[in-house]
Amino acid sequence: MKKYLAEMVGTMVLVLMGCGVAVSLACDPVNDHASVIGTAMAFGLSVVAMAYAIGGISGCHINPAITLGVFLSGRMSAKDCTMYMLFQVIGGLIGAALLCLLVSTTGTDFAAAGAGLGANGLQSGVSVTGGLIAEILFTCVFVLVVLGATSKTNGATNNFAGLAIGLSLILVHLVCIRYTGTSVNPARSIGPAIFAQFIGGPVTALSNLWIFIVGPFVGAALASVIWRVIEPEEK
Amino acid sequence: MKKYLAEMVGTMVLVLMGCGVAVSLACDPVNDHASVIGTAMAFGLSVVAMAYAIGGISGCHINPAITLGVFLSGRMSAKDCTMYMLFQVIGGLIGAALLCLLVSTTGTDFAAAGAGLGANGLQSGVSVTGGLIAEILFTCVFVLVVLGATSKTNGATNNFAGLAIGLSLILVHLVCIRYTGTSVNPARSIGPAIFAQFIGGPVTALSNLWIFIVGPFVGAALASVIWRVIEPEEK
Amino acid sequence: MKKYLAEMVGTMVLVLMGCGVAVSLACDPVNDHASVIGTAMAFGLSVVAMAYAIGGISGCHINPAITLGVFLSGRMSAKDCTMYMLFQVIGGLIGAALLCLLVSTTGTDFAAAGAGLGANGLQSGVSVTGGLIAEILFTCVFVLVVLGATSKTNGATNNFAGLAIGLSLILVHLVCIRYTGTSVNPARSIGPAIFAQFIGGPVTALSNLWIFIVGPFVGAALASVIWRVIEPEEK
Amino acid sequence: MKKYLAEMVGTMVLVLMGCGVAVSLACDPVNDHASVIGTAMAFGLSVVAMAYAIGGISGCHINPAITLGVFLSGRMSAKDCTMYMLFQVIGGLIGAALLCLLVSTTGTDFAAAGAGLGANGLQSGVSVTGGLIAEILFTCVFVLVVLGATSKTNGATNNFAGLAIGLSLILVHLVCIRYTGTSVNPARSIGPAIFAQFIGGPVTALSNLWIFIVGPFVGAALASVIWRVIEPEEK
Repeated sequence: MKKYLAEMVGTMVLVLMGCGVAVSLACDPVNDHASVIGTAMAFGLSVVAMAYAIGGISGCHINPAITLGVFLSGRMSAKDCTMYMLFQVIGGLIGAALLCLLVSTTGTDFAAAGAGLGANGLQSGVSVTGGLIAEILFTCVFVLVVLGATSKTNGATNNFAGLAIGLSLILVHLVCIRYTGTSVNPARSIGPAIFAQFIGGPVTALSNLWIFIVGPFVGAALASVIWRVIEPEEK
Repeated sequence: MKKYLAEMVGTMVLVLMGCGVAVSLACDPVNDHASVIGTAMAFGLSVVAMAYAIGGISGCHINPAITLGVFLSGRMSAKDCTMYMLFQVIGGLIGAALLCLLVSTTGTDFAAAGAGLGANGLQSGVSVTGGLIAEILFTCVFVLVVLGATSKTNGATNNFAGLAIGLSLILVHLVCIRYTGTSVNPARSIGPAIFAQFIGGPVTALSNLWIFIVGPFVGAALASVIWRVIEPEEK
Repeated sequence: MKKYLAEMVGTMVLVLMGCGVAVSLACDPVNDHASVIGTAMAFGLSVVAMAYAIGGISGCHINPAITLGVFLSGRMSAKDCTMYMLFQVIGGLIGAALLCLLVSTTGTDFAAAGAGLGANGLQSGVSVTGGLIAEILFTCVFVLVVLGATSKTNGATNNFAGLAIGLSLILVHLVCIRYTGTSVNPARSIGPAIFAQFIGGPVTALSNLWIFIVGPFVGAALASVIWRVIEPEEK
Repeated sequence: MKKYLAEMVGTMVLVLMGCGVAVSLACDPVNDHASVIGTAMAFGLSVVAMAYAIGGISGCHINPAITLGVFLSGRMSAKDCTMYMLFQVIGGLIGAALLCLLVSTTGTDFAAAGAGLGANGLQSGVSVTGGLIAEILFTCVFVLVVLGATSKTNGATNNFAGLAIGLSLILVHLVCIRYTGTSVNPARSIGPAIFAQFIGGPVTALSNLWIFIVGPFVGAALASVIWRVIEPEEK
């Protein structure tokens, strides 16, 4: 139970802090590249923070796509896989609710950026196909790093895994915010998409939500295949 | 005694460098997001620097909210808790005094940003309630990271704790500067609020100071409760 | 074979993510310094990510210039040297192809930056001589860091090597993007230069490609000489 | 001899890369805060890179102020202290010469920023007293981190010292570029001040050079006194 709670708290922190910075910096991938860097840092550093805070308890997935990749690599049971995902989504909902509360009590200045609660969406000029490819591609890279950095092959660097994975999430956001705001994590997308509806956020956050569930899961499955090719000795 | 002095020096450095960068970059959370990133880095890297410089002596709390969280988790005595806080506040006062000296001898160019000495305050459009919620919420996240990263559960990653905690303070500033300039640390707020009065800083820095004492302490207490739920085995 | 595949995947990720961020942030070294910082972070963090993901398999060169430097330092066989370079170039081609696919399906907004696919080229006011000197000089510094950080002399810090080398690639990009966009890696330059031709990229990306092959190789050779002078005991 | 050469190469890299980025990003502390962040990262990451490349050989001081602080703490001989400083200054001269060569061959676009070669100087509105106080204060903080992070007290974190010291140099630059461009290192200041004269740089770079020699040395001496007070057991 303890590890499920840890996953819930970790995902809550990821959504509260990551989406929170997207709101605080009014993240705009076309006109304000400093806001993109700050938002990218926020998601990545949330993972670093949580990796060293709860990593010893649950392994700190805080992302159903990672949990799927780890499960497909035969490193966890189906029951744990399901429970991890469930608690991650709950954590994401709590994180979005807290951010919603904060933005609501803060006044009208946040109207534009705040109403979106950092929910994912197709950015200027990006088609559904483009967004889906971006989510598949970049989730694949991200989960590949996770599988590699936590594999027995790289055993000696295990303590670095949390740092390396967090920094690679910064990387993924730097490239992908321009396309979709960057999900690569269904639990990060569900909460903000729902709670944004209560404070005037865009309806498309809900209607396009499937992209940010299907994309990351396909990308994660792909990553587990690639990792098996690179490192067939790991069973 | 040695450890109290270390806490004093560490908090002095945190305030001098963190608030110093807020002054140097004329930190403006609405119009200049690069200045927010730079200021956030300054506070976080001050913690990294001090963690590896004095961590072996005092554990490098340099923040009364952290000290409260550690005390409530049963990891330190009431006497040490009190002394730590006292020396942290003294260190913060010295840091603010040094910054005040530097700004005063530097000429008029710093008038706008410099006069505030990086003191905390409610930012554009943020209510007292909003500011208080922000300080509680984000101190809670920060102290949770501290308690987790330094717990026995994550023993193997102990050497990384200083880095993880410092990076998570960058994270907290990225999201919270937009609301209150980010305290999450009463000792960081008291010094600049007082010394800013001598060089034309805003009176509200003093009248709102309670927010930056109550908020962080409530957040830290909350974090110690959450950590007990996640990791009940730690006594 | 496993290690060659790892080099291919690693270089693919480096090109996809590094050049991908140059496209996403419309990297402009003269007018938008935030875009330079973001692009520099992307290349460096790609190396950090890959170092901890595949470092245990191949050593994570993902750069023919590094492979040359390691070979000239007598640390790898001629056969491995050749195969590493071959698979790195293939990986770079795949990475550029994936980025080309992504940009093509994403609509017209990326016209200006996207068409270049992050290919290297002489920036505003930079001569061929200037570009060549920049590539030689900065590859030399980069490969020197690689040789030093992975040498037996610094054995105790081996686990840090991936981080140190990745961070030093951020450094190299910060200084060198203004001159050539920064290659210091022939495999990173070849892929984008070729695929950019399919979507309206500049012909000069191909005609100047030799600079980004000759420059990095000369720089790497120089670095291996300098390292032998500093540390003659290493055979 | 090997360790003196390492110090020379390390300081050469620090000046070439740090000052090189100041030129590439046309560092402007008043109007372009992204350029300040990039330049600060450059100096700090140069130290990280060199710490893991040559740290095992010479300890990677690459700064006469650090060498003075280490000497005053009784950790090195007078002969080594003198030789380290000599080779550091020579390295700084070579680094500045290389940057001068690069800027000269690159065309006229760098006229404004390039001519200064990143030499230190009093920034807009900063008096000599202000600049001197800034250099003393921030060198003191920096050397304090160096002495603490490399002390026996913090022995367990030794491998982190290079990272912590490099990150603290980023911190020092973030705050101090606004005052003096940040020296905290006489060897970093001497080379660019001299070579800037050959390509139209400001004469004040030479006439104010004493500030960047006296300030850092006084700050370093102060740091060694403070460290003795905090940690009297270290002989």
